[in-house]
Amino acid sequence: MAGWFRRRRDLPASPARVNEPIAARLALAELTPPATEYLGLAAYLELTLFEDAGRAIALAPTTAAKSALSAVAQPHLLAHEGMVAELRRRGRDPVGAMEPHRRDLDEYRRRVEGQDWFEAIVTCYLTAGFLTDFFRGLAAGLPPELRTRMEMLLDIRESQRVLTELLLAAIDGNPRLAARLAMWGRRLVGDTMLVARGALGVGIVAGQERIEPVFTELIAAHTRRMAALGLTA
Amino acid sequence: MAGWFRRRRDLPASPARVNEPIAARLALAELTPPATEYLGLAAYLELTLFEDAGRAIALAPTTAAKSALSAVAQPHLLAHEGMVAELRRRGRDPVGAMEPHRRDLDEYRRRVEGQDWFEAIVTCYLTAGFLTDFFRGLAAGLPPELRTRMEMLLDIRESQRVLTELLLAAIDGNPRLAARLAMWGRRLVGDTMLVARGALGVGIVAGQERIEPVFTELIAAHTRRMAALGLTA
Repeated sequence: MAGWFRRRRDLPASPARVNEPIAARLALAELTPPATEYLGLAAYLELTLFEDAGRAIALAPTTAAKSALSAVAQPHLLAHEGMVAELRRRGRDPVGAMEPHRRDLDEYRRRVEGQDWFEAIVTCYLTAGFLTDFFRGLAAGLPPELRTRMEMLLDIRESQRVLTELLLAAIDGNPRLAARLAMWGRRLVGDTMLVARGALGVGIVAGQERIEPVFTELIAAHTRRMAALGLTA
Repeated sequence: MAGWFRRRRDLPASPARVNEPIAARLALAELTPPATEYLGLAAYLELTLFEDAGRAIALAPTTAAKSALSAVAQPHLLAHEGMVAELRRRGRDPVGAMEPHRRDLDEYRRRVEGQDWFEAIVTCYLTAGFLTDFFRGLAAGLPPELRTRMEMLLDIRESQRVLTELLLAAIDGNPRLAARLAMWGRRLVGDTMLVARGALGVGIVAGQERIEPVFTELIAAHTRRMAALGLTA
């Protein structure tokens, strides 16, 4: 993934600078990449989240679940198309803007797809939740008009509601499944944080503390998502 | 699949009546089932076509193809949601209306999913083309207001344009692939006609001649679709 943050903000690139004092808690908006890079990554990510939803639909055990999940796939398709349109409006080639993110995000998707339908919908719920929060946060640093459009495209409240309902119904009275999905959720958040960190171009060691506050907040939201299912993060 | 036609039109149910003279060439509109049955089958079919498109997106070999295919998935999601909303408006349970068609359509989807991306996009192109024609034709017999809404939901022109473009690019200068996809197309149309016939509740022998004209027209459109790729149907 493109390393915006390192390139733009002169983040410590070598271990020697790791323990420098952190000046301030940076808000996510201060990390926002240039609009085109933001749009390219977000547009490909939306395709990725759409594919997760498509897989959940294909695996759905009932007609009711399959049909309900269409509301989960929909916002990601719309967001993808909106972001592609935004890139075109700026005279950029959408494919060129997305391409640099393809390999890492495809690999991410393979890691998080899950073994069965239950894991697949936990993936939809948690990864889309986390990464949509992340991109909504980053949008705060975009030009105001674009920010507004992105915030509209990144509205997955209905999708999250549908997923919560499906998951609560699945977990209800099934503590073994609940335990398995809690574990799956823990694994997902690790992989998903790596994607977000990668997007910011922050190496595993260098610069980690600098964006800590951002991730603290994202993880708090993740914990609330788990708690909504009665699971421990 | 529910046997509307047989139930509603008193089609010959036993071989004894097979060779009765056929009164007239029935237009597809005359075969239209009650609105709720139409909507239930069409809504589940749209989910099926959406799943085909989702699979094509997942298998797409390039970012450009993946992104372009979002325009192929989109209309089926919208159509599904529109039809579900229409069932609700009529006070019907959408899941109950879709359920009777699930087994057959899931089985159909497994048969037509194809071995690789090329076959998967031929499937999207030909099965959605054929079955959308079929349901647009049937819509002519619905109450006028519902008919108009269905015709709007069943507009896949942009999707067909995208698929034609992707397929022409793939086939260009690759006669071996062209031959393989032509063969795949021939197999698809057989399975797809069975779905349409099943939807009308017409047995393999009984009543076949009665709907022949309808299928003649649908097959002519299929042949034009193949010809648009330079393939023989």
